[in-house]
Amino acid sequence: MIAGHNFGACLPTFGNCADRYCLSGYGGGGQTMEEMLDLSLKVEGLDGLELVGNWHVNDANIRDVGKMFADRGLKICMLVPDLWTQAKWGKGSLAAPDAATRQAGVDEVRKVMDWAAELGCRYVDVWPGQDGYDYSFQADYIEAWKWLRDGLALCADHNPKVRVLVEYKLKEPRTHCFVNSAAKVVLLLQGLDQVGVLLDTGHSMAAGENIAEAAALLASFGKLDYVHLNDNYRSWDDDMMVGAVHLVESLELVYWLKRVGYKGWLTLDIFPYREDGVKAATECKKWIETFFKAVERVGMDACAEVIRKADGCDAVGLVRRALCG
Amino acid sequence: MIAGHNFGACLPTFGNCADRYCLSGYGGGGQTMEEMLDLSLKVEGLDGLELVGNWHVNDANIRDVGKMFADRGLKICMLVPDLWTQAKWGKGSLAAPDAATRQAGVDEVRKVMDWAAELGCRYVDVWPGQDGYDYSFQADYIEAWKWLRDGLALCADHNPKVRVLVEYKLKEPRTHCFVNSAAKVVLLLQGLDQVGVLLDTGHSMAAGENIAEAAALLASFGKLDYVHLNDNYRSWDDDMMVGAVHLVESLELVYWLKRVGYKGWLTLDIFPYREDGVKAATECKKWIETFFKAVERVGMDACAEVIRKADGCDAVGLVRRALCG
Amino acid sequence: MIAGHNFGACLPTFGNCADRYCLSGYGGGGQTMEEMLDLSLKVEGLDGLELVGNWHVNDANIRDVGKMFADRGLKICMLVPDLWTQAKWGKGSLAAPDAATRQAGVDEVRKVMDWAAELGCRYVDVWPGQDGYDYSFQADYIEAWKWLRDGLALCADHNPKVRVLVEYKLKEPRTHCFVNSAAKVVLLLQGLDQVGVLLDTGHSMAAGENIAEAAALLASFGKLDYVHLNDNYRSWDDDMMVGAVHLVESLELVYWLKRVGYKGWLTLDIFPYREDGVKAATECKKWIETFFKAVERVGMDACAEVIRKADGCDAVGLVRRALCG
Amino acid sequence: MIAGHNFGACLPTFGNCADRYCLSGYGGGGQTMEEMLDLSLKVEGLDGLELVGNWHVNDANIRDVGKMFADRGLKICMLVPDLWTQAKWGKGSLAAPDAATRQAGVDEVRKVMDWAAELGCRYVDVWPGQDGYDYSFQADYIEAWKWLRDGLALCADHNPKVRVLVEYKLKEPRTHCFVNSAAKVVLLLQGLDQVGVLLDTGHSMAAGENIAEAAALLASFGKLDYVHLNDNYRSWDDDMMVGAVHLVESLELVYWLKRVGYKGWLTLDIFPYREDGVKAATECKKWIETFFKAVERVGMDACAEVIRKADGCDAVGLVRRALCG
Repeated sequence: MIAGHNFGACLPTFGNCADRYCLSGYGGGGQTMEEMLDLSLKVEGLDGLELVGNWHVNDANIRDVGKMFADRGLKICMLVPDLWTQAKWGKGSLAAPDAATRQAGVDEVRKVMDWAAELGCRYVDVWPGQDGYDYSFQADYIEAWKWLRDGLALCADHNPKVRVLVEYKLKEPRTHCFVNSAAKVVLLLQGLDQVGVLLDTGHSMAAGENIAEAAALLASFGKLDYVHLNDNYRSWDDDMMVGAVHLVESLELVYWLKRVGYKGWLTLDIFPYREDGVKAATECKKWIETFFKAVERVGMDACAEVIRKADGCDAVGLVRRALCG
Repeated sequence: MIAGHNFGACLPTFGNCADRYCLSGYGGGGQTMEEMLDLSLKVEGLDGLELVGNWHVNDANIRDVGKMFADRGLKICMLVPDLWTQAKWGKGSLAAPDAATRQAGVDEVRKVMDWAAELGCRYVDVWPGQDGYDYSFQADYIEAWKWLRDGLALCADHNPKVRVLVEYKLKEPRTHCFVNSAAKVVLLLQGLDQVGVLLDTGHSMAAGENIAEAAALLASFGKLDYVHLNDNYRSWDDDMMVGAVHLVESLELVYWLKRVGYKGWLTLDIFPYREDGVKAATECKKWIETFFKAVERVGMDACAEVIRKADGCDAVGLVRRALCG
Repeated sequence: MIAGHNFGACLPTFGNCADRYCLSGYGGGGQTMEEMLDLSLKVEGLDGLELVGNWHVNDANIRDVGKMFADRGLKICMLVPDLWTQAKWGKGSLAAPDAATRQAGVDEVRKVMDWAAELGCRYVDVWPGQDGYDYSFQADYIEAWKWLRDGLALCADHNPKVRVLVEYKLKEPRTHCFVNSAAKVVLLLQGLDQVGVLLDTGHSMAAGENIAEAAALLASFGKLDYVHLNDNYRSWDDDMMVGAVHLVESLELVYWLKRVGYKGWLTLDIFPYREDGVKAATECKKWIETFFKAVERVGMDACAEVIRKADGCDAVGLVRRALCG
Repeated sequence: MIAGHNFGACLPTFGNCADRYCLSGYGGGGQTMEEMLDLSLKVEGLDGLELVGNWHVNDANIRDVGKMFADRGLKICMLVPDLWTQAKWGKGSLAAPDAATRQAGVDEVRKVMDWAAELGCRYVDVWPGQDGYDYSFQADYIEAWKWLRDGLALCADHNPKVRVLVEYKLKEPRTHCFVNSAAKVVLLLQGLDQVGVLLDTGHSMAAGENIAEAAALLASFGKLDYVHLNDNYRSWDDDMMVGAVHLVESLELVYWLKRVGYKGWLTLDIFPYREDGVKAATECKKWIETFFKAVERVGMDACAEVIRKADGCDAVGLVRRALCG
């Protein structure tokens, strides 16, 4: 737990992270899922883990997975349907130009929803990362929008125990993803009340958003369901540790999470390619706690008062007093 | 006219453009409004001009302005209420933290709407450029959103002869503007049917958008009312000539304008700091015509077919054949 | 003084800052130079001010200026020759395509060097902001490089009491400036030992550099003569307060300034458009002191040890302990 | 051949491209090296291929590889020592904090130089992609610079038949690579005359450079030895087809290649994740030919004249006439 929130991590934190050059991974982490779960237990206060379809769970192992988690007192905080780890999704999933692929995408989400219900996991994360385009003249933006909405509508009430969340991202693996900003995902989901949003702070920053403003927007439309925390240098989803770069923005995010009454998970989505995963997750936790304590130090009222005055000097001074005392 | 569209320009094209270093301007252009209008007549096919409150029009001259235009056979295609050229708007207009300033913003828009009606101009362009923030902890995002909506609602049906359009922009003059993307402006205007959107291609590119996708999104929500054309290097609103940088994206935009049946103005919003304004506007016109001809060369159906196949190679080849024959 | 360094500011901090939309400025600040100087005295510990040619000093007032400073116990830490505030420099100064303009640029620099010598100011800041290009096919990169070198060589030993510094910047007022990175300015100055470099942290960040790495590079070539401090959001020279955004990078910069034994000025180059200049400069000073104290808290040796281990987790933890205790 | 230049491609063009999500690749391409070579033969006019250590060549197969190429009339235009595909290089190669790894890096380069000499390949491409850092306080910039220089010096004259080239890149796989710009690589190589530079246009664009200016800079220091062609959206090394995005910049590059008398290879470095490699390479070739023809259409003299005048309108018009007739 962190400041009253469940604290989670994505499983690859404790595995062997690869990139497109070093495809066999930078080493370290556990090899099997049980090894990875055991590593995760070394992170003090960790409550649960996210699993990705095909990478971590599949038709063969999904039922065993529940026992592995239960045996360790860990929750499955999220199941992520595989819409992006296999070549078959290369040109899209829910918004693929090919109708059969779109149907396969819907089927995949629904199947994972049922798994989630069975495993006591409340959410599935629909990340339409392959739904987009790389080149101009490669997508029909109006059709794609309809396909996305239709696909999400088909999933939305499939299993009342599980809420479908949509995770937006500007780019990667496509140079342009369709669902690329907080405002766009809210617009896409108008009328689809059963579908929520997963805010990944790294995706938001790489999309040029202020993460605090994104959280406030999502919350004001009732769509701030779940939060992924990480950091990057704004031009790419570097999946770095919390506290790596954007201290001011992260502090402001924590203020707004408290302000809008967010009660959900705080889950790390980091890729510690060259780091020890346990150490990296632990460091993230310390930074997150630091941000919460910093807001407490100055107080919610003082923050609100500075915001009300809209004075840059006061704002910069507030951050200094909050973080550095 | 360009390909059946009215062709316009913003008046500063023919004036003396300044930046924050060279505040007295780089020279060239006309000094008086009549000189600027006379220069504009040298751009073949130009149908009208946009005027900016305080810079070009004010309570004293607004009625004379109509005659200056009529005498030259020029239309006023847009009046832009001054919500950003004076220190009093420095912390915002329609979404200023100060209630009196917000009211002054509404009053200004309504006044200019009445001017527009009197002058036969169908649109006012509400560009809330000062409505945003520079620092973290300097804005209440949820209040600002409400203030913007409330302000726009108060303007929306003030004068039935004039449609209020909102122009979005990621940044400048604030480091963060509230209304910063196509999706966000559509979301902001849900339920405000009388208010439309002005798509400025440079703003869209600087916001990280694909301009064709932005146009398609706006059109599919019935909000593509007016288009500003210019170009830049994506990190700033450089207000360069059409054809300067983004040939592929501009070509795709023209395809989508035709595809969604856009019939409105094509208006240049360029700042030819170091260039001759007439020459710059003329060169822009040639590039726009080149894009229209390029789409015609390959044909709308061929474009649609390439899009349907979603193949990158075909897409790149299509652009080559369209532009280079 | 800050941690043993002379502490300065650019004069516009205490004036009325304008941008290209609000050309008459956002108000506030002093009107006359004496008023601005008097305001600057309210910033505790301020040792001196930078002046810009044409904006602040000119042939008529330059000799009076010395007295204004002396009367207030202020130093002139820098004179900036005007190579960018007038239309005549619009297409360049030292590297203008026009030979007479290049000569005028050299003359301007030399004249200001003599002023500096007379006023006890050790540096002039050659910022070739207009030397660049906006469009492809608008500059001869090889000629421009030669012109820049030749011009600097002509200035370099004009007055042995004054050192010419070159300030680099990626863009603005041109979309591309020739002297755009730390590495490029060092390369340009190979063989010109009398010419040094001014590192503006905001320019460095907007150029995509890590400011600490830039400082280390300059220092290792003996070119770290002077430092401008400010902050921005990386895509533009926002000239914000120190501490606004990049806390981690600023902390690392302070470590490297100490590591390489930098003894020179720490001068603010901020544009407090909507802020009170005295308050803004004071807040910057507090943040700079915070960074110096943070390095002291963990110690230079501990920093060096973390760097030696090259472990991301240790690095992130070090920053947390340094800043937040 | 393209316009008198040898025309090459990197072998992965004809293989199965993977990214960090779809680690098993998007399918398509050849499985074995012979299959990939056979596919490459289908690209009309292709003269040779680049091979990457560990991915394509290793101690076991390197001598067979020569025969595979000879049998097909293909040249090996480049061997790329493996300094980045294995976990052992994760924290660097020539500039790794660990001395043994640095020595291993030198040994690897020297070994591949000998292979190259034996195979009639004139170049090895030292791409120090892992030499950099991800976090602040994770690198000693001054030591790293020395290590890089020392390592390159140890390789430089190892085998007089083979020239070592250094390929620069801003980021990826590290968030910051040390050798990140044209100016920096030239500075790094001052005094190392035997070492040249490989300009990858995608790396240059992602580093915020104008590729034409980068080529001119390298050439004026005698370091433009080899060129990689591809395209991207500037914020990442997307490895897209030539002609995808930056038509104007690519055209200007071709002018400057001709202007500086570049006679070397034009080699594609693309990752056609979702495209047919043969088709993608063929489309690139058509675009490159289009750029050469466009320069010819207007003529070198006309380009030089426009550049001399430094007028933005003329520049934009020149591009239009060159590309679109």
